[in-house]
Amino acid sequence: MPKTLESAPADDGFSMPGEFERHRRCWLVWPERTEYFRQGAKPAQRALVRIATAIAQGEPVAVCVSARQFDNAVRMLPPQVQVIELSTDDMWIRDCGPCFVRHPRGEVRVVDCAFNGWAGLAHGLPVAYQLDDLVPRKIAQLEGMDRYVCDLVAEGGNLCSDGQGTLIVTAENLLDPARNTAGRSRQEIESVLCSHLGARKVIWLERGLRHDVTLGHCDNLACFVRPGVVVQTWVDDPADPQFDVCREVHEVLARATDARGRALEVHRLHQPEPMFVQAEDLDGLDAGPWLDGRRVGDPIAASYVNFYIANRAIVMPGYGTRDESARATLQGLFPERPVLVVPAREILLGGGSIHCITQQQPE
Amino acid sequence: MPKTLESAPADDGFSMPGEFERHRRCWLVWPERTEYFRQGAKPAQRALVRIATAIAQGEPVAVCVSARQFDNAVRMLPPQVQVIELSTDDMWIRDCGPCFVRHPRGEVRVVDCAFNGWAGLAHGLPVAYQLDDLVPRKIAQLEGMDRYVCDLVAEGGNLCSDGQGTLIVTAENLLDPARNTAGRSRQEIESVLCSHLGARKVIWLERGLRHDVTLGHCDNLACFVRPGVVVQTWVDDPADPQFDVCREVHEVLARATDARGRALEVHRLHQPEPMFVQAEDLDGLDAGPWLDGRRVGDPIAASYVNFYIANRAIVMPGYGTRDESARATLQGLFPERPVLVVPAREILLGGGSIHCITQQQPE
Repeated sequence: MPKTLESAPADDGFSMPGEFERHRRCWLVWPERTEYFRQGAKPAQRALVRIATAIAQGEPVAVCVSARQFDNAVRMLPPQVQVIELSTDDMWIRDCGPCFVRHPRGEVRVVDCAFNGWAGLAHGLPVAYQLDDLVPRKIAQLEGMDRYVCDLVAEGGNLCSDGQGTLIVTAENLLDPARNTAGRSRQEIESVLCSHLGARKVIWLERGLRHDVTLGHCDNLACFVRPGVVVQTWVDDPADPQFDVCREVHEVLARATDARGRALEVHRLHQPEPMFVQAEDLDGLDAGPWLDGRRVGDPIAASYVNFYIANRAIVMPGYGTRDESARATLQGLFPERPVLVVPAREILLGGGSIHCITQQQPE
Repeated sequence: MPKTLESAPADDGFSMPGEFERHRRCWLVWPERTEYFRQGAKPAQRALVRIATAIAQGEPVAVCVSARQFDNAVRMLPPQVQVIELSTDDMWIRDCGPCFVRHPRGEVRVVDCAFNGWAGLAHGLPVAYQLDDLVPRKIAQLEGMDRYVCDLVAEGGNLCSDGQGTLIVTAENLLDPARNTAGRSRQEIESVLCSHLGARKVIWLERGLRHDVTLGHCDNLACFVRPGVVVQTWVDDPADPQFDVCREVHEVLARATDARGRALEVHRLHQPEPMFVQAEDLDGLDAGPWLDGRRVGDPIAASYVNFYIANRAIVMPGYGTRDESARATLQGLFPERPVLVVPAREILLGGGSIHCITQQQPE
């Protein structure tokens, strides 16, 4: 029933809503990848249960799971969470899943960007991503939505929209030659973002957090609270490896204007204390390139900006340091949505945080 | 979101509609089981495409498929058919899938009967059925429907409802000690059929077609055209192995009354000419108990009664003999629905026909 469309969403009047707009549901994926998640992903599954439960306080939640784990997921998740068999290679549906665009009259469609597993082995990551690449198609089938195909390698974690034509992205990620190798210039990529996500103004951050295995996703750096208002990650300590990046981001955002010509109101959200790989984090991981590339003491990129905006809640990652002050800052920015803090270190060990494992479907 | 209910559907006012009532969609499964389906199930997949295409002329169709075959199924099926990742062990969703019950106010719920793979090895059949057994639960999750659990081993192919409280079943199947082994009497089974499917009158046929590997499913024998009217399978030739069964069925139906006390109007539908296993049917099957149990020249049970009633079409299996006369008989019984004949021998080689591979979801 859903059609594959050759046209460009913007030409059809479709554009990407803001995450703060109304959702029909939140999509999540059951963690099963044992290269990234220690002890057969069992601790990560317990973490996912807590995150899904929190998001379900704010909107409907559907969790995708393989046939092999279906029964276990149904038993572990609370009854208010929908469980759907939908196989993936990994749990980062923000990046491999559909990007949704909406028409002013209400119809929602899927934009299916190219996906190459975060450029896989080029960056020391496992290479299986064929199932991940089918996720937008499967969700389009489930929802009966028409689907646009976009040949740009663009991960959802690097696409932040204000719902009014402004998009924040990083150049480090989109210009990575292992992602968009066709010699595409910044200008050419910007034109695809405009035609396929309905953007009229793209704000380019140059690079992302250091040690971010996704290579510079903007969802660790900054996001829109509402049109005209952004919150960005921050550190005070000049010795912190993220100090320079935080300042660079601030310089860009503070002087940027959005698609409507407004200057942005920029808020700061202090990062957690620096985090490092511990011995137990490496215990019970599958042998392979991921484990080969990690040592005890390696820094882990972590950001409180990687939170999720549900209809009636903010779900913020807890890392055990500065959680309370981050919660208070976010509560001030979102006075009408209770901020729920859920431990996320176990997910972070796989390379991302709460925002990375979610994908909102607009209403 | 969907709940598991401990109560009995009949006590909650739910009962099983007739197949001739309005459907929301038809569920099918992509054939992948290479013990039953020769040449890696490729001929069966082509047959399924034709059947799905025909049913889609009469109502929406969703085809369940494993992750491994998702992309192939999407490419082979026409765009008007929805493709959903939902792993099974086999393709007989009539038997392992949900039985739907409806409340007079319109709510539809799932009845999840026990399923043991047609009693598996007790009858020389393969034994894997764990995925099949999860199908009702998965569909309840997808549709957000509450689900009743029923501990009776009852296959949908042996449950034919008139939507007004009458059910036709066979004793051979429901009383099979390898299915319902708890020493349950006919009376006790009847009481479960009443409480869980909302029946008030159960018409027991004693035995099914000879050589039916499902062990006597009534959907090869007889079905309701509408309340008060049934069509049953028939042969004229006393030498045909199905001659006695056809007469037994007729004797029961001709003197039966339904839940409302009406005598039944009984129509006859002549069977195809006797069918036998041919050498090429066994070529390219997996080694195992199914292949071990088949020889060239073995009879195959086949019935034109195994058709499917879609909203705006009848989809009838074609076997290459007597198809036209069966089509004409059915067209007379269903004057408002065009009768579409689709070749089904390739499906029949796996043990069932078009009705066996469908499951209607009431509107």
